[in-house]
Amino acid sequence: MPDIGARTWVVPGGHLPFPSRDPEPEFTGFDQLCVLNATDQDAAIGLDIYYEDADPVGPYRFLVGSRRIRHVRVNDLVDPEAVRLDRPYGCVLRSPVPVVVQFLRQDTRLPGVVALTGTMAHPG
Amino acid sequence: MPDIGARTWVVPGGHLPFPSRDPEPEFTGFDQLCVLNATDQDAAIGLDIYYEDADPVGPYRFLVGSRRIRHVRVNDLVDPEAVRLDRPYGCVLRSPVPVVVQFLRQDTRLPGVVALTGTMAHPG
Amino acid sequence: MPDIGARTWVVPGGHLPFPSRDPEPEFTGFDQLCVLNATDQDAAIGLDIYYEDADPVGPYRFLVGSRRIRHVRVNDLVDPEAVRLDRPYGCVLRSPVPVVVQFLRQDTRLPGVVALTGTMAHPG
Amino acid sequence: MPDIGARTWVVPGGHLPFPSRDPEPEFTGFDQLCVLNATDQDAAIGLDIYYEDADPVGPYRFLVGSRRIRHVRVNDLVDPEAVRLDRPYGCVLRSPVPVVVQFLRQDTRLPGVVALTGTMAHPG
Repeated sequence: MPDIGARTWVVPGGHLPFPSRDPEPEFTGFDQLCVLNATDQDAAIGLDIYYEDADPVGPYRFLVGSRRIRHVRVNDLVDPEAVRLDRPYGCVLRSPVPVVVQFLRQDTRLPGVVALTGTMAHPG
Repeated sequence: MPDIGARTWVVPGGHLPFPSRDPEPEFTGFDQLCVLNATDQDAAIGLDIYYEDADPVGPYRFLVGSRRIRHVRVNDLVDPEAVRLDRPYGCVLRSPVPVVVQFLRQDTRLPGVVALTGTMAHPG
Repeated sequence: MPDIGARTWVVPGGHLPFPSRDPEPEFTGFDQLCVLNATDQDAAIGLDIYYEDADPVGPYRFLVGSRRIRHVRVNDLVDPEAVRLDRPYGCVLRSPVPVVVQFLRQDTRLPGVVALTGTMAHPG
Repeated sequence: MPDIGARTWVVPGGHLPFPSRDPEPEFTGFDQLCVLNATDQDAAIGLDIYYEDADPVGPYRFLVGSRRIRHVRVNDLVDPEAVRLDRPYGCVLRSPVPVVVQFLRQDTRLPGVVALTGTMAHPG
């Protein structure tokens, strides 16, 4: 299979919703990066988080196996440091092999309400 | 008419909402792949489903006629096996002729709430 | 100014929400095509509507002036024939000059609920 | 780091929601442009707003620092003139260095309801 995707992806519009009012974990508010790796090699992903008022932080690291997907909640990224709730951010994802990246937000700040938005990330 | 689109499309962020609380079928939660085939040939589509923790499953097969669209609920794909609710997945769609693919999710897990999100798929 | 955009745009995932329960016109359910024409020439747009089970219908025609945008509700397209509510469709938009096209859906089928989804159309 | 993105980005489907019924500022309705600048130079952004029935207005100006993001609410743009609520618009963003631009709308016209939609802008 020919490789699909790109090695760099960008999401400028990150913002972890705060507060989350609905039950954990399915109705917690989150931003999510969804990565598909159709290649024959595991992908050691590196993610840099960009802010409005501080230098970028990273790389955050996670693995997406060969011929696997991975849906990573940005809320769960804690090393080198947690991404704060309610703080605007963006991110640049780098992979050693071509992957495809989609962004999803679930906003549950209001009780009994689920709002979703998302977009394909921008390939570099 | 010149051909429009691409022969490979990728959606990394699949996740069939569970549970669905609203009346069938219009308020059932679903993920949907919307395919437009503007060419003069029927398109025998092949779809591979990728998971976080298992090998890809497929191809799922469906037809999009010449100069036709088709909106396929991923919930309805059962051969070679059903895509489980509430399990993260991604997919790679292949067509023998150029097509265009859009992804849509309808989330009705909360009673009386409809959340929608979608994006154009990523062309390979 | 260099021309921006493309002359062909595709949206596979059309579906006019039915019913609309909220007050007209601001909370009526709709699909919308948003076109930006940054060129120095008016754009006489032609739109073909594709279906699952019938030949394409069109062209529907509307004008987007030079250095103007236009947000067209698909619900309002009636010539050569109205696009029926609750029937899956897709569309191919053609322009004599480069334009950019975005798709938006407002779903108000449930009382007191607004769901939005959209995406940039796919450039041909 | 190689430059990421493009110098021109287009969003045809702007429309500031009106009215906003939920508490300021977190539940105010807005359109937002999210810009990521991964380059080593500050980006002095120029934004032109396009309308259905009037000449474009601009440039609106704002800065996105080197290796920074910026999330700009269109509601907050007032120079050369405020963008009116409930009036369809589109925009063309220009940057002296490559950036990536994402569009987000938060619609809170109905009490107790949050609707979100967004998409990556179209690169020129």
